[in-house]
Amino acid sequence: MSRSVRDYIRTIPDFPHEGILFRDVTTLFADARGMRICVDQLLDPYAGTRIDRVAGLEARGFILGGAIAHQLGTGFVPIRKKGKLPGPRIEEAYVLEYGEAVMEVHEDAVEPGQRILLVDDLLATGGTAEAGIKLIERLGGEVAGCAFVIDLPELGGRKRLEALGMDVHALTSFEGT
Amino acid sequence: MSRSVRDYIRTIPDFPHEGILFRDVTTLFADARGMRICVDQLLDPYAGTRIDRVAGLEARGFILGGAIAHQLGTGFVPIRKKGKLPGPRIEEAYVLEYGEAVMEVHEDAVEPGQRILLVDDLLATGGTAEAGIKLIERLGGEVAGCAFVIDLPELGGRKRLEALGMDVHALTSFEGT
Repeated sequence: MSRSVRDYIRTIPDFPHEGILFRDVTTLFADARGMRICVDQLLDPYAGTRIDRVAGLEARGFILGGAIAHQLGTGFVPIRKKGKLPGPRIEEAYVLEYGEAVMEVHEDAVEPGQRILLVDDLLATGGTAEAGIKLIERLGGEVAGCAFVIDLPELGGRKRLEALGMDVHALTSFEGT
Repeated sequence: MSRSVRDYIRTIPDFPHEGILFRDVTTLFADARGMRICVDQLLDPYAGTRIDRVAGLEARGFILGGAIAHQLGTGFVPIRKKGKLPGPRIEEAYVLEYGEAVMEVHEDAVEPGQRILLVDDLLATGGTAEAGIKLIERLGGEVAGCAFVIDLPELGGRKRLEALGMDVHALTSFEGT
């Protein structure tokens, strides 16, 4: 039987902190077939739907987002950590375990009425994704869907995004953090 | 006449510091045609050559790298700032204007004998790209080429990489920093 997306993902214990099982997608992306089936499966639920641009969350979401935008023939929009985008931009703060962080998007990255597919490698608490959704919606865009390679359901991100009315799509899930 | 890659690039004065003209590729990537012609033109010199994997430099190189890997049907390898990669890795330090920085790659990201296309949005002094080249070569890979959207020739990056025997390809160049 051929390998699934899940089979290409490597688990690294104690990264970035002791007790964390880090789900590493670099082994998935480094493999030609892994990368290909990952993009195909992420896009599968959106066949026949209108997507105007793809937005990726810094930094691993840029890899997938670039590939998916190219596959769809759309443009790509980076949603970045504060201080990285040079042009006129808006920001959204979100809560972390300790303190808060801020994500930004360029004001002209989304045109009103555009349907945006939001992509990232991992859905954990959903804080970064929620900030991305708010940024897209504040610019008048509509989130066509939120697509992730990995869902960690115990951390509640899927429920959080679904409570915002989002369509959430993940290729695989892992128990625990 | 249709717009060139250069026409899609926006210049932002005084970012990240006063006196710097920042060449912003987000306006290029956000446009469906801009993204498409950028990927096509970056790959044009490599038609018919063997490329086994695409390596992108964090973070904007991930966007292009993901798209190019998908176009070629190869895997993608991230070359990241220190502390971001979870698995066994090697590092290369390089000199910045003030101080130094360190780039890392996973030990299993490149297999001996693989031909790797290195991509990034911008070639300035070439410090980050040189670190990326050294990392690929230390893992036994061969750099098939170094492809950039923008070259800033006054900063010397092209000469620096060509002195290492690299094939350097850029879509457009700007005078000044």
